[in-house]
Amino acid sequence: MYHLSKSGSAGHASAECAIQAMESCEVLLDGVRRAGDVTDKIDRRRYLHAGPPLALADVPGPMRGALIGGLLFEGEAASVAEAEAIIDSGELEISPCHDAGALGAMAGVITPNMPVAVARTGETLTFSPLNEGVNGAVRYGSFDEATIARLRWMAGTMAPVLDDAIRSSEPINLVELVAEGLRRGDDCHNRLVATTAILLQRLTPALIRTAHAPDTAAEAASIIAGNGHFSLPFAIAMAKARTLAAANIPGCPIVTTMSGNGRDFGIRVSGLGDRWFLAPSPIGEPKLIAGARMEDVNPTMGDSMISETAGFGAFAMSASPAIMSFVGGTVAQGIEIVAEMRRICAGTSGRFLIPAEEHRGTPLGIDVHLVAESGVAPVINNGLCHRLPGKGRIGAGITRTPLEIFVAASAALRAEERA
Amino acid sequence: MYHLSKSGSAGHASAECAIQAMESCEVLLDGVRRAGDVTDKIDRRRYLHAGPPLALADVPGPMRGALIGGLLFEGEAASVAEAEAIIDSGELEISPCHDAGALGAMAGVITPNMPVAVARTGETLTFSPLNEGVNGAVRYGSFDEATIARLRWMAGTMAPVLDDAIRSSEPINLVELVAEGLRRGDDCHNRLVATTAILLQRLTPALIRTAHAPDTAAEAASIIAGNGHFSLPFAIAMAKARTLAAANIPGCPIVTTMSGNGRDFGIRVSGLGDRWFLAPSPIGEPKLIAGARMEDVNPTMGDSMISETAGFGAFAMSASPAIMSFVGGTVAQGIEIVAEMRRICAGTSGRFLIPAEEHRGTPLGIDVHLVAESGVAPVINNGLCHRLPGKGRIGAGITRTPLEIFVAASAALRAEERA
Repeated sequence: MYHLSKSGSAGHASAECAIQAMESCEVLLDGVRRAGDVTDKIDRRRYLHAGPPLALADVPGPMRGALIGGLLFEGEAASVAEAEAIIDSGELEISPCHDAGALGAMAGVITPNMPVAVARTGETLTFSPLNEGVNGAVRYGSFDEATIARLRWMAGTMAPVLDDAIRSSEPINLVELVAEGLRRGDDCHNRLVATTAILLQRLTPALIRTAHAPDTAAEAASIIAGNGHFSLPFAIAMAKARTLAAANIPGCPIVTTMSGNGRDFGIRVSGLGDRWFLAPSPIGEPKLIAGARMEDVNPTMGDSMISETAGFGAFAMSASPAIMSFVGGTVAQGIEIVAEMRRICAGTSGRFLIPAEEHRGTPLGIDVHLVAESGVAPVINNGLCHRLPGKGRIGAGITRTPLEIFVAASAALRAEERA
Repeated sequence: MYHLSKSGSAGHASAECAIQAMESCEVLLDGVRRAGDVTDKIDRRRYLHAGPPLALADVPGPMRGALIGGLLFEGEAASVAEAEAIIDSGELEISPCHDAGALGAMAGVITPNMPVAVARTGETLTFSPLNEGVNGAVRYGSFDEATIARLRWMAGTMAPVLDDAIRSSEPINLVELVAEGLRRGDDCHNRLVATTAILLQRLTPALIRTAHAPDTAAEAASIIAGNGHFSLPFAIAMAKARTLAAANIPGCPIVTTMSGNGRDFGIRVSGLGDRWFLAPSPIGEPKLIAGARMEDVNPTMGDSMISETAGFGAFAMSASPAIMSFVGGTVAQGIEIVAEMRRICAGTSGRFLIPAEEHRGTPLGIDVHLVAESGVAPVINNGLCHRLPGKGRIGAGITRTPLEIFVAASAALRAEERA
């Protein structure tokens, strides 16, 4: 059973509604399909991207790299030069993943033929592209031949095998998947090794039974087993479904979206509809890969901080001591962060429990009033890209989000109350 | 890299040898085979059992149940009455698993056709029976038809499929398996859900490729996925190999065996060869299953406390907050136990690391002198059987081993030094 924070806030009753809506939202894995089969918001010249809206001319380097990768992957461009010409011609339309029920990790470019993990809550579908691994991934802005070839294999060969296996398996509850992942030491945002193993374990009997081409199924299983982040899109598609359930509650101060496009960082709040509150995207103090320089880091981007918005990721760091060295911190810091996040959340999850805290739930539901009153801004775990197109991943970190956008959202809600 | 305890002991140099021997011992998964193909110490009338030696007439209820189960499984008896007649005729010889390089969890009866997980270190094989789950298992003394049928299926159908998969997989390092399990919140003695998922994940590509009968392979995968203890025999076969590497070092005070037969609890010490030091087996303060009574609990039995002997299980409780509710304790108690065990161990593992302790290693190498001097006896995680044959599992607990046997072993070593 979930609990409400004692501190409460001016939006108490509506905050309770949001917490209740998130907690009661069950999300099942629906399949792995073409993005174009899940949403009508993309086509040959309309792609999705991570974060708040931005103009094509303003996309940062890694997102430009991901657009180039997307055009190459789709066969719309035969070369990088052709892809760049399409982008620079202005004929490509881009819009936020979040407005299509989608989540794009990092650059978050989604094109029609990309394979996506699809989650279902009632009639609502949410989805996120299959994870390509950390080395050479379109979502990190890479577009080299090996990256494109891997993504094509995942789309054309791996995805149908996984979709078959999912359809012939017992339903997989994605809320339970993350809950069990937290019990196994993942934060389920930047560490998902145990969660990925659970997902593969659940699919293995069906993978064996449904394998028309055993070598393909075996290769798919090997790739999943070798990619500790494979279950991330499944986790964040679930998180999106839960936050959607909490959206558009009148007066409600609970954050339903946090996301970055590599230029702006933005939030949306339940009681304020689709309005974005924006600030320059932070960089934080990341742990960079060997040889990387701070001046090469692109500011934070991606939709995967839906994890924190839905009560895991950095909000469950005390469940995941092993994550801390990956993002450059100590175990004690992880524990402190969760304690701090409890101060700004309206509730405590009854589903996402932290064994190390004697099975206490994670802090759930960021309340903009509590953020504004305490001066404590939410913290996210995140990956970071090189600022140039095609350079890929450069590090990971624990990043403090910009306080001012929560303060502005709180003031906007108060103003509406007075009106 | 492993570390030696600062406290040291009179056997310091030899203790260092033992720690070094355990730490440098790599153990690979060799296969899943018939027990009778791995050791020549069993046959139609010679079975193995858990714990120190005991006479057939003295076997406690659950071990008698396991012997009945073994005879039924082997087809040596067609009924419980026939099995009991064979036992009571005295024609059955029993000897400790530990003397055959074997480990028997709980009652630990091993018969020739039982399927065992086999670990290899150089030319040395160690092995332990496949885990049948917790409900209806010969190792818990059950011998009903469903239990025997399941074990026959595991032996005849599942084991060959697994053995094929293991042979066609990349080698699986069992030290690494446990090390990764600890990183995923298992203690690897009583909680092995994440470790089991890793093992299955490693075997999945081969299970898909080698499945002559996909339905059988799929069923095997389902059973593994549904049995969180499945990887226990793999973990303890590895632990046995490591402790064997530390055996028979002159003057060495490091414990190489702790085990119970449900009547006696015994230890063996590196510098004292095959000599057992015995005390009545403890019961501790277990967490019983619903409806069970303390007077029905059989004293501690089984060889699985080789986990603690090799530096995990209760010695890694701080890695596994989720285990604590299963064995009836709090997270804080788990942390205290590990801290306490550090006082009596000669070293700290460089392989088994505890993320929650900022990746500090587990306490490794119980030093009987340190136990005697501190008065702190080792703690084990353990399962418990009903005291009557055929009644099965009754609970689990955290149990303190008898101090006097460590004191006696310490005195015996000192006496040898003086001699």
